[in-house]
Amino acid sequence: MLTRRRFLGAAALLGGGLVSRAAQSAVPEAAVQAGPATQPPLVPREGRPYNPVVTLNGWSAPWRMKDGRKEFHLVAEPVVREFAPGMTANLWGYNGASPGPTIECVEGDKLRIFVTNKLPEHTTIHWHGVLLPNGMDGVGGLTQPQIPAGKTYVYEFQMKHSGTFMYHPHADEMLQMAMGMHGFIVVHPKNPAQHRVDRDFVFLINAFDIEPGAATPKVNTMLDFNLWAWNSRVFPGIDPLAVRTGDRVRIRMGNLTMTNHPIHLHGYNFEVTGTDGGWVPKGARWPEVTVDMAIGQMRAIEFDAVYPGDWAFHCHKSHHTMNAMGHDVPTLIGVDHRGLVQKINRLVPGYMLMGERGMADMGEMEMDLPENTLPMMTGQGPFGPIEMGGMFTVVKVRDDIKPGNYTDPGWYQHPEGTVAREWNGRQEKP
Amino acid sequence: MLTRRRFLGAAALLGGGLVSRAAQSAVPEAAVQAGPATQPPLVPREGRPYNPVVTLNGWSAPWRMKDGRKEFHLVAEPVVREFAPGMTANLWGYNGASPGPTIECVEGDKLRIFVTNKLPEHTTIHWHGVLLPNGMDGVGGLTQPQIPAGKTYVYEFQMKHSGTFMYHPHADEMLQMAMGMHGFIVVHPKNPAQHRVDRDFVFLINAFDIEPGAATPKVNTMLDFNLWAWNSRVFPGIDPLAVRTGDRVRIRMGNLTMTNHPIHLHGYNFEVTGTDGGWVPKGARWPEVTVDMAIGQMRAIEFDAVYPGDWAFHCHKSHHTMNAMGHDVPTLIGVDHRGLVQKINRLVPGYMLMGERGMADMGEMEMDLPENTLPMMTGQGPFGPIEMGGMFTVVKVRDDIKPGNYTDPGWYQHPEGTVAREWNGRQEKP
Amino acid sequence: MLTRRRFLGAAALLGGGLVSRAAQSAVPEAAVQAGPATQPPLVPREGRPYNPVVTLNGWSAPWRMKDGRKEFHLVAEPVVREFAPGMTANLWGYNGASPGPTIECVEGDKLRIFVTNKLPEHTTIHWHGVLLPNGMDGVGGLTQPQIPAGKTYVYEFQMKHSGTFMYHPHADEMLQMAMGMHGFIVVHPKNPAQHRVDRDFVFLINAFDIEPGAATPKVNTMLDFNLWAWNSRVFPGIDPLAVRTGDRVRIRMGNLTMTNHPIHLHGYNFEVTGTDGGWVPKGARWPEVTVDMAIGQMRAIEFDAVYPGDWAFHCHKSHHTMNAMGHDVPTLIGVDHRGLVQKINRLVPGYMLMGERGMADMGEMEMDLPENTLPMMTGQGPFGPIEMGGMFTVVKVRDDIKPGNYTDPGWYQHPEGTVAREWNGRQEKP
Repeated sequence: MLTRRRFLGAAALLGGGLVSRAAQSAVPEAAVQAGPATQPPLVPREGRPYNPVVTLNGWSAPWRMKDGRKEFHLVAEPVVREFAPGMTANLWGYNGASPGPTIECVEGDKLRIFVTNKLPEHTTIHWHGVLLPNGMDGVGGLTQPQIPAGKTYVYEFQMKHSGTFMYHPHADEMLQMAMGMHGFIVVHPKNPAQHRVDRDFVFLINAFDIEPGAATPKVNTMLDFNLWAWNSRVFPGIDPLAVRTGDRVRIRMGNLTMTNHPIHLHGYNFEVTGTDGGWVPKGARWPEVTVDMAIGQMRAIEFDAVYPGDWAFHCHKSHHTMNAMGHDVPTLIGVDHRGLVQKINRLVPGYMLMGERGMADMGEMEMDLPENTLPMMTGQGPFGPIEMGGMFTVVKVRDDIKPGNYTDPGWYQHPEGTVAREWNGRQEKP
Repeated sequence: MLTRRRFLGAAALLGGGLVSRAAQSAVPEAAVQAGPATQPPLVPREGRPYNPVVTLNGWSAPWRMKDGRKEFHLVAEPVVREFAPGMTANLWGYNGASPGPTIECVEGDKLRIFVTNKLPEHTTIHWHGVLLPNGMDGVGGLTQPQIPAGKTYVYEFQMKHSGTFMYHPHADEMLQMAMGMHGFIVVHPKNPAQHRVDRDFVFLINAFDIEPGAATPKVNTMLDFNLWAWNSRVFPGIDPLAVRTGDRVRIRMGNLTMTNHPIHLHGYNFEVTGTDGGWVPKGARWPEVTVDMAIGQMRAIEFDAVYPGDWAFHCHKSHHTMNAMGHDVPTLIGVDHRGLVQKINRLVPGYMLMGERGMADMGEMEMDLPENTLPMMTGQGPFGPIEMGGMFTVVKVRDDIKPGNYTDPGWYQHPEGTVAREWNGRQEKP
Repeated sequence: MLTRRRFLGAAALLGGGLVSRAAQSAVPEAAVQAGPATQPPLVPREGRPYNPVVTLNGWSAPWRMKDGRKEFHLVAEPVVREFAPGMTANLWGYNGASPGPTIECVEGDKLRIFVTNKLPEHTTIHWHGVLLPNGMDGVGGLTQPQIPAGKTYVYEFQMKHSGTFMYHPHADEMLQMAMGMHGFIVVHPKNPAQHRVDRDFVFLINAFDIEPGAATPKVNTMLDFNLWAWNSRVFPGIDPLAVRTGDRVRIRMGNLTMTNHPIHLHGYNFEVTGTDGGWVPKGARWPEVTVDMAIGQMRAIEFDAVYPGDWAFHCHKSHHTMNAMGHDVPTLIGVDHRGLVQKINRLVPGYMLMGERGMADMGEMEMDLPENTLPMMTGQGPFGPIEMGGMFTVVKVRDDIKPGNYTDPGWYQHPEGTVAREWNGRQEKP
């Protein structure tokens, strides 16, 4: 396997001396994310005030004001990303991570975004959903020259309207997106009271095909992905979303995989209140418990978090709440298998008869996994194994949540008698 | 092949002596569905009145009132399901069938649902779309302990709002759903005049991967399913939906497969009037002829059945109106094949040159099929072979339909001159 | 490979002497499309006036008035279609092309459509979305007899409502649709001022699986298609859509593939204003930048073309903006490959190490391609290689566009300083 040092080392070599010393002073520092933990919201210190978002297992990019513009600096580069404890992948991203940092600004803001290319091939950035001059649209060959390896380009445009957008390359697009290159953009309304919510989470939906034991995605896979991720994390590596009981909650998502993801929230009805095209008029909204996220499409969902508890939040495609697995295993349900394992073991030492009584055992037992590979079904809850993977996490609604707490409040303490329980034959009181 | 007796026999052994004799008297009987025929609607004998639904090739679970609660009893167990005459499958389901019985109740009703696990592994039930206390949400490990094999658990909650919901396990989910474990829930409005329609049909969309000649689904298949089903039935095994001309008709569907299904109705425009999140406001509805059913998403569509006829009703993915087939067959269209079959037969005895002039012949001819396998294209209509399979049936709109007739009124009798006909060269009168 | 002559020759033989001489005089001539160029809109010479649409890389069928009916003549037949310069395919279509001609008429019009079957097997035509008598619905076996090879059938119905519809066979459906048999229907409003726009484009989304070097689609492919097309054309074979700055633009699409296509327009927000079920009420519309096209579903999107430029317009599934490729190629990103090519070349002469530094090189270099095969990533823009394929084209918004110009206005001339540019280290003026 490619080592981390060798994977990043090549990039470091390429990245050296990109911009002349004189130029560097004019380019804002490119901050780097240290790890995959969800960072606290970035409260703006200058410019118009806004209510910052929380990027799930991510962060927001710092910026500086210069000549009336907010200046950001994105560095496209190879990164090493932990998908969950026990598994890291060699990806391409921005500023140390995949996805890149969330860009937050305010309606009317003028932006100058420096993009430094530390990849081994050219790239561009397309600002998906943003209304901007044609030449800033970032389509390599069509609206601008490609950004060669080692060069820094600059994009300048004004944010015409508030909303939910994203950025990604429009150059060698299939490969660069399969490698994890994308990031979130949130444009806040000029008036912070408009579209105001109490908690505002954002993440991108992405997918990878990494063979068990390997670390680099296969970039030509069209359908048969095996790591279904949110912000390049899979369960149990995805942080929970903690909110206070009664909060108005918004969750904004964008899908950059190769298939639709029906994102389902337990315990609540919600509405889609915004898209990458703008805000959805109130009279046009539908009540939903599952939002079907199409590719290249963004949705903001909102609900009032009035019911306390640990509410599952996941893609409803059952394979997308599993980690990497073999799809060709035959079904053994109902087969009388006495002696079968012994016979197979003579042929295939170490073989485990998967699924003879279902596969729930896999959530409980220790299997010998290849190095750098997550169990297919995993996770421990307050009542035992959760048997999930991939695009699964929990919205944690609590009365006593702290203002600065976005991910951490432990397991829900059920009041007595409110959990499904074994029937003991006694007559219940109504 | 596993025999029916052996498949169910193992379950019967497990199911014996689940609950002590004392306890049994307190648990309502678990009724069992006898066969795959559509059962007449279950008219409520006590509790608030409502207009019951018709479950396509299914039935509604009986219940009893006790201490002000409606008590249901679901038994998770292996079942044998006929997909269409000529093919049965070894599935897992509830109360003798896959899907399980439809649960019908009324807004405000208090429910007590006993769930007995006669599977060889643990399970739970998640009540999809229902607003309930966190501990009744049915997510194994997260909100409750798993229900071990042989045990009975009890869920209790009140139905807060009317609508269209479903139930399915949240334990070893990928496998248990691939085996057919799910059922429909309809919560009727307190006021039976609200959202009232004349005919109200419900079914779940599910898919299986069963090799021709086999009977047990492969549970790890992610994409390449070969039996595209409604309520675990495929054409010509899916009953037609009979309605009287002028009826207001509602069809409620939920999708628990691994891909979207665009369900298309001929001859009509319809609106989506409800989801698993609630009722869609009138001003927010779109006119449609095809509703794209996302996974873990439910839709109620409605239309006024003003046009008599036999109207095709099917998934618009052309492969989903076919039964099991090989997808790797080369195209022979246009190839001069004289002598080719003879040559191939020397290599592959019994080989049939499929598709040299298209594949319509397959709808007409007898092919040697493996045991327990349906033809890929089949069905006989009033004008010849219909050449369909999978997710296909017919909405039959008739002037003279009887109140108790939901599936049976034969073929439509076209008035003279209203069928596309061969052109005979004579000038038509306008 | 099958030659064009042999492929069409077989059809010509079948097509001879279909209708007796007496009959032929009563059947309108079946016009044939000469090539894949976008034809100018067909301005109606008789009947109610309407604003005709532009069919992307297609045309509208001529008709004649007879006895108060508009008579059309569709001929189902094998065709040879150029997907893009350098690649042609053996398809089935109508009147010389796949898709067939667009049928345009006016709300209230009475139609008589002659359908001649020059295919080697039977067929029918279903008029998707059109409200018509059951016997004209075109479902072989169910609502009419199949149309045998060599016969002409006649359909007669009145257009009850304006909107966006399509036609395709409902006979051996999987194969006939996989071969390219479908066409667009536009019913214009009685009042030409209603739903009026300045430019109205239409196309169908279709997909094929043609092995590199071959020319005939594999008709059994369910998932792994390799040519993702609009009107049986792929980039760079899809014409651009030219509009004048300020125009109200409508683009109508229908999807007849086996998967959803999220169609994304750069630089604009749009609304879905119509479906195959009718027009969407204003209050029910959502602002979007991507419309998820489900199968058997049609959408009309509209926007005001106020921003000049060359705006990318494409499916957002990254593999769908590629041409045919191998999906099993391993990733070599980051691998130290010195000497590797030489070693592999000893095993596989001519092997190219794809992707060692990404795959952008492929948009720039000449690879040895099999005969009749398009590059995976291709296209030249004003700033270099565009690196796209499949479902990609450009909406060209210009101040000086001519009324009769729908596809051709060259590359956008960016005003100075409005293109993303290399950072030269100097301080920019705000």
